[in-house]
Amino acid sequence: MKSDSVAMVDLPSNTYKQETVCIFGTGDFGHSLGLRLLQSGYNVVYGSRDPKNSKFLPKGSKIMTHAEAAYEAQVIFVAVQRDHYGFLSSLASDLDGKVLVDISNNMRSGMYTESNAEYMSTLVPAATVVKAFNTISAWSLQSGGLDANRQVLVCGDRADAKQLVVDIAQALGFAALDKGSIKAASELEDLPLQLFPLWRLPLRIAIGLTAFIFFYVLIRDVIYEGVTNGKDISFRIMISLANKAFPIVALVMLALCYLPGALAGLLQIYNGTKYRRFPDWLDRWMLCRKQLGLLALAFAFLHVIYTLVIPIRYYVTYRRNVYVISLVKDNVTYEFDKIAAWRYDSYFSMGILGFGLFVLLGITSFPSVSNSLNWREFRFVQSKLGYITLLLCTLHTFLYGWDKFLRPSKFKWCMPPAYMLSLVVPCVVLILKLILIAPCVDNKVTRIRQGWERQSKTSQNTSTPLMA
Amino acid sequence: MKSDSVAMVDLPSNTYKQETVCIFGTGDFGHSLGLRLLQSGYNVVYGSRDPKNSKFLPKGSKIMTHAEAAYEAQVIFVAVQRDHYGFLSSLASDLDGKVLVDISNNMRSGMYTESNAEYMSTLVPAATVVKAFNTISAWSLQSGGLDANRQVLVCGDRADAKQLVVDIAQALGFAALDKGSIKAASELEDLPLQLFPLWRLPLRIAIGLTAFIFFYVLIRDVIYEGVTNGKDISFRIMISLANKAFPIVALVMLALCYLPGALAGLLQIYNGTKYRRFPDWLDRWMLCRKQLGLLALAFAFLHVIYTLVIPIRYYVTYRRNVYVISLVKDNVTYEFDKIAAWRYDSYFSMGILGFGLFVLLGITSFPSVSNSLNWREFRFVQSKLGYITLLLCTLHTFLYGWDKFLRPSKFKWCMPPAYMLSLVVPCVVLILKLILIAPCVDNKVTRIRQGWERQSKTSQNTSTPLMA
Amino acid sequence: MKSDSVAMVDLPSNTYKQETVCIFGTGDFGHSLGLRLLQSGYNVVYGSRDPKNSKFLPKGSKIMTHAEAAYEAQVIFVAVQRDHYGFLSSLASDLDGKVLVDISNNMRSGMYTESNAEYMSTLVPAATVVKAFNTISAWSLQSGGLDANRQVLVCGDRADAKQLVVDIAQALGFAALDKGSIKAASELEDLPLQLFPLWRLPLRIAIGLTAFIFFYVLIRDVIYEGVTNGKDISFRIMISLANKAFPIVALVMLALCYLPGALAGLLQIYNGTKYRRFPDWLDRWMLCRKQLGLLALAFAFLHVIYTLVIPIRYYVTYRRNVYVISLVKDNVTYEFDKIAAWRYDSYFSMGILGFGLFVLLGITSFPSVSNSLNWREFRFVQSKLGYITLLLCTLHTFLYGWDKFLRPSKFKWCMPPAYMLSLVVPCVVLILKLILIAPCVDNKVTRIRQGWERQSKTSQNTSTPLMA
Ligand SMILES: Cc1cc2nc3c(=O)[nH]c(=O)nc-3n(C[C@H](O)[C@H](O)[C@H](O)COP(=O)(O)OP(=O)(O)OC[C@H]3O[C@@H](n4cnc5c(N)ncnc54)[C@H](O)[C@@H]3O)c2cc1C
Ligand SMILES: Cc1cc2nc3c(=O)[nH]c(=O)nc-3n(C[C@H](O)[C@H](O)[C@H](O)COP(=O)(O)OP(=O)(O)OC[C@H]3O[C@@H](n4cnc5c(N)ncnc54)[C@H](O)[C@@H]3O)c2cc1C
Ligand SMILES: Cc1cc2nc3c(=O)[nH]c(=O)nc-3n(C[C@H](O)[C@H](O)[C@H](O)COP(=O)(O)OP(=O)(O)OC[C@H]3O[C@@H](n4cnc5c(N)ncnc54)[C@H](O)[C@@H]3O)c2cc1C
Repeated sequence: MKSDSVAMVDLPSNTYKQETVCIFGTGDFGHSLGLRLLQSGYNVVYGSRDPKNSKFLPKGSKIMTHAEAAYEAQVIFVAVQRDHYGFLSSLASDLDGKVLVDISNNMRSGMYTESNAEYMSTLVPAATVVKAFNTISAWSLQSGGLDANRQVLVCGDRADAKQLVVDIAQALGFAALDKGSIKAASELEDLPLQLFPLWRLPLRIAIGLTAFIFFYVLIRDVIYEGVTNGKDISFRIMISLANKAFPIVALVMLALCYLPGALAGLLQIYNGTKYRRFPDWLDRWMLCRKQLGLLALAFAFLHVIYTLVIPIRYYVTYRRNVYVISLVKDNVTYEFDKIAAWRYDSYFSMGILGFGLFVLLGITSFPSVSNSLNWREFRFVQSKLGYITLLLCTLHTFLYGWDKFLRPSKFKWCMPPAYMLSLVVPCVVLILKLILIAPCVDNKVTRIRQGWERQSKTSQNTSTPLMA
Repeated sequence: MKSDSVAMVDLPSNTYKQETVCIFGTGDFGHSLGLRLLQSGYNVVYGSRDPKNSKFLPKGSKIMTHAEAAYEAQVIFVAVQRDHYGFLSSLASDLDGKVLVDISNNMRSGMYTESNAEYMSTLVPAATVVKAFNTISAWSLQSGGLDANRQVLVCGDRADAKQLVVDIAQALGFAALDKGSIKAASELEDLPLQLFPLWRLPLRIAIGLTAFIFFYVLIRDVIYEGVTNGKDISFRIMISLANKAFPIVALVMLALCYLPGALAGLLQIYNGTKYRRFPDWLDRWMLCRKQLGLLALAFAFLHVIYTLVIPIRYYVTYRRNVYVISLVKDNVTYEFDKIAAWRYDSYFSMGILGFGLFVLLGITSFPSVSNSLNWREFRFVQSKLGYITLLLCTLHTFLYGWDKFLRPSKFKWCMPPAYMLSLVVPCVVLILKLILIAPCVDNKVTRIRQGWERQSKTSQNTSTPLMA
Repeated sequence: MKSDSVAMVDLPSNTYKQETVCIFGTGDFGHSLGLRLLQSGYNVVYGSRDPKNSKFLPKGSKIMTHAEAAYEAQVIFVAVQRDHYGFLSSLASDLDGKVLVDISNNMRSGMYTESNAEYMSTLVPAATVVKAFNTISAWSLQSGGLDANRQVLVCGDRADAKQLVVDIAQALGFAALDKGSIKAASELEDLPLQLFPLWRLPLRIAIGLTAFIFFYVLIRDVIYEGVTNGKDISFRIMISLANKAFPIVALVMLALCYLPGALAGLLQIYNGTKYRRFPDWLDRWMLCRKQLGLLALAFAFLHVIYTLVIPIRYYVTYRRNVYVISLVKDNVTYEFDKIAAWRYDSYFSMGILGFGLFVLLGITSFPSVSNSLNWREFRFVQSKLGYITLLLCTLHTFLYGWDKFLRPSKFKWCMPPAYMLSLVVPCVVLILKLILIAPCVDNKVTRIRQGWERQSKTSQNTSTPLMA
């Protein structure tokens, strides 16, 4: 830095020239990119097969043949479809030593075996290919009207070439992120085609579970009532049944979020090392825990509102009024049941506190929040408070069941109440956790996670852990 | 990078010296900046008109005349008001080749025709002027007590000069963002004076709408009742009326958020190209959709809590009790209305699900969340799920009206119930959208948005879209 | 930048070689780091005391003696515990001119007087030590499974050495932040050991207050009732008492969040300058206002849900039914009390609006949101809207008390109702604020905050404020 600044003093300030950038291709992306470059103070030259007939180019840019345009600039954006890359090989000598920026995407993932950028590289080996800007759409270049991702991901084999592209991206107001060598290109080319890949499995689980529980309570509550008592209570579907399915899905998914961690712990103990890879299904499961947790929170949120809306429902008001009228007419004494008061209030309290912590977990998973936590803090919230959330929510469900719990008279067509089913996974997780935090087991896990291995032979001077 | 590192090996490590930074001006900003620079390991020299009489400077800094101070450093911060820039021209020779950092702001927007930085540039043409740090307040330099924007925006005509300033900003713990050439200076100088510029129009719409709906229901409900029946039900203002106005405003604003997109689509079809600029009002409308949407969400949020609070209101409890008492006394049979049960529950369900999606839209508009989505994902949530939200909320309102809908007996003083008014805009938007997603129209829009133009003559090799 | 690009044209592109990085130590962190470096396209050589017996190293890496390994690379990561740094001094000549990256942490804060990095520097004075990567755990290097902080903090005395490490961090997908000279190392070494340091004081206040209020209402409500009337109403603990404690804690903590600002203002007037440091307790208090506020919001959130759950509580339903039955039986006329209707509705309205603003304050304190606001906007929300929130919440509490306010008959065992206590701090804050915004006082504060001092002698040309 120092040396730069010293050098600069000697330069008369007016020798500093505007940089020129070349764009091959006058289509939508080339058009938008040129516009933006001009706005940021670059000179722009377009290279075209047929310079005379190209119109609609941004004011201030020049257009010439590919070879002429390439001569003008060090960095050349190739805004042309992969199918038309052929012309590049005929320009090989003009492109010698240049930086070619491949900005292309494919229509579908896996259309070609090698990435567009690597293919370009084989066509013009004397140039350096940098993959960049493919995650930015022409529309966002042009207008910036919507707020999606404004990060330019860059990859390529030469650091100096990448730096040139990073400089341009930053000058255009984007954040740039280096993604390594050109081998990362196929990954970058897949990115804009993705639609919530990590959410897919959790979403499927959520939908599957919801459907299952919903039909379960539909049969057990509505159809059973219709068949045995001939009463049609299908109006309960909209809220009563939904509000049975939602909390169950929320609880089970919350538990599913902590199950893989517990399994992983057991597996590490069994393997005696943490350097053995987990089986694939466990790996995938662990990678989507965040999404599982956030979906669980969404269901819990719906459960809360569906519950709070209860007292203004027509059906509930009706039932309550009928009850009061019957009390008056039958002239029975109406006893206050202290146990019931305790039970209901505890049930609500557990639920509310659990939901509060649940929301806290959700808040810390905002990228900007989790980035401001250190490792220890993040683990404290997500792991410790997460288990407390699970505990509170499980207790909430137990208190809901109360003394009806496991009472056979509550079974209909041999089907236990749905909330009982929902308790299986959480209880398993809590029991596994209890085992894992038993002092002797815990010590072992901790040692293993600090790099210790059964019959370890790593050199002595590093056998103690470096990281807390 | 490589070359740097190789070079470094040859240097004996102790030739590396602390950088010196010069500050003209010993006022509040100069003071705070010097303190911070010293803390970050820089040498600081102050330039002052009257070095002998300047006090209260941070410990460790030196003070000298302007010319002497300028000699010491490559980068000079000018922490002096524009009115006093005059002395700079007399120092022209001392400042030759230096980087002058203009950090000034004006009291009001538009006080001068040219920006302070450009003015400085005309005074000392042999120096390079960089505009920076004007969005950072002296107080945040000093204390860092509050968390506002910690981004140093930099603009200037020479990349090397800007880099020097960026390095300093980063060494001081700020994030730096390049905003292009010195022409951006007047924009930067306006920034700290702004107070939510993009929120202004949406806020005005929200306030206007709220006021209108509020007076409408005030007249229709309270005043009508007072005039025709002589009953004073003004106590209903605080919650009942508010809870009529809020959901209406929320629904209308949500619709207003999707209306410009639909209009833009129609316009693009009409123009046969996307390269024709939208009329100004449409452009401005489209740029504040995020703010419109978030305000709509705020009103929906209030509506939800106002609704949930209903059963604990004194008035509602009173009415319910009176109703039950009358049922008992009059000894009428109290029939359960299954249709009503379905209707109310569906009404609540639509509302809750709509609100859930509404919140999801809100969450994805957090900068840190939207930055982690790719373009396709952001559009999926904001556009697809957004329309589903609008649909659910519209259904919610229709179910509220139910069979009272358009029944003239519900008109008071020829005024239809307020919720009917609220349905106009959403229905228009939904109908327009239905037209736009009709296959033939949709194809056309898609083609146009990929750069296709009616009678297009762009060169062949780029006529197919590059971006999905 | 320009010069780089020109230079590059001359280089035949295939002279560009993969960079080699050296790691001393084959423990957990060394292992994970090597793996990650290899994945990002670096060559990795391990230096070990006993190269023959080291196993389990990532595939593709080489292992050799420390001296041999050091020879291969410019940057050397020392992944060894501080206790074992001794071997470095014997390698002094091999490490001459190299960049040593100290990644170590200690088990406890304050174990050593000088930081690990500075200690390393004294052992190998001819090398440049850079502290980095110590906030990243081995586990996050390996898996990236969890989302905590991905920021690599870097400090060191030479900018060029730091740049090399920053480049590596970025190539590995981390964000890098320069924290200044090597003197910052001890601060960086403390970071990963911290567990919410800024939250500690606010949390203690919250827990202390909650406990106090809880016992206060326990004695006043439950125990008093038990002793004087012999009735056991302990079932009220779970919700009724909690829902008395939570809003009180929320209100008091909200007020505590604005009290220090008011005190600071008074102090600045008293001192006649803003350059005199605040007393330590005030400084610490002011630095944790954000945390105070967010905790207050958490309590307010619990209060809201606890309140909304009221109508579905068993106890409340029971009481309401009993009341209706008694009305029917006793055949009294049941009068509608318009004042009560107004009062309750206003009470709810104030609360809801206050809570809405409260949530808004919370939203703007998300790092990604506050970063997108300028200084003026942030102050507008946090300061102006914050005071309005406090005002609304205080009014909400006054309306709750209504005419019972200060009525001695409401005292039990000389203890006033709890909500009265809760009004003390908010009223003090509001009164102080009223004083501070009185025009004459306000002018003075503004002048002082712009750098003005009583009997100031700063040089004239900078005496007027630069920043709004
Ligand atoms: C609302 C909500 C939001 C959530 N948001 C997030 C989120 O943003 N990000 C996220 O990741 N999760 C998130 N989750 C999921 C969950 O909270 C976390 O994954 C949580 O950390 C899991 O805790 P755990 O104790 O089961 O796992 P951990 O104990 O953290 O780890 C589980 C397994 O990881 C392995 N492991 C951990 N440390 C080491 C080590 N040092 N060395 C080797 N192996 C190790 C072990 O195999 C261990 O068994 C969220 C959950 C919810 C409900
Ligand atoms: C709670 C909430 C939060 C919101 N947050 C945000 C937010 O953070 N950011 C935000 O932007 N909006 C936000 N919105 C507003 C709204 O959801 C979005 O603007 C949404 O994308 C509009 O969808 P659309 O389908 O109407 O518009 P789009 O279809 O996305 O676009 C509308 C118009 O843009 C033009 N256009 C789109 N793509 C192209 C293209 N490729 N080429 C040329 N022209 C094109 C067309 O003229 C089109 O008609 C929010 C709304 C709500 C309710
Ligand atoms: C839900 C919630 C969230 C919150 N989040 C945040 C948050 O993210 N960040 C945060 O900081 N606070 C946060 N707070 C706390 C609080 O809102 C802010 O600290 C608020 O700015 C305090 O306002 P004030 O008017 O008391 O203080 P201010 O007027 O801003 O400042 C108080 C004192 O600072 C000093 N001061 C201010 N300006 C200057 C100046 N120019 N020169 C010298 N001294 C000056 C003065 O001594 C002044 O008396 C939050 C509060 C709540 C309830």
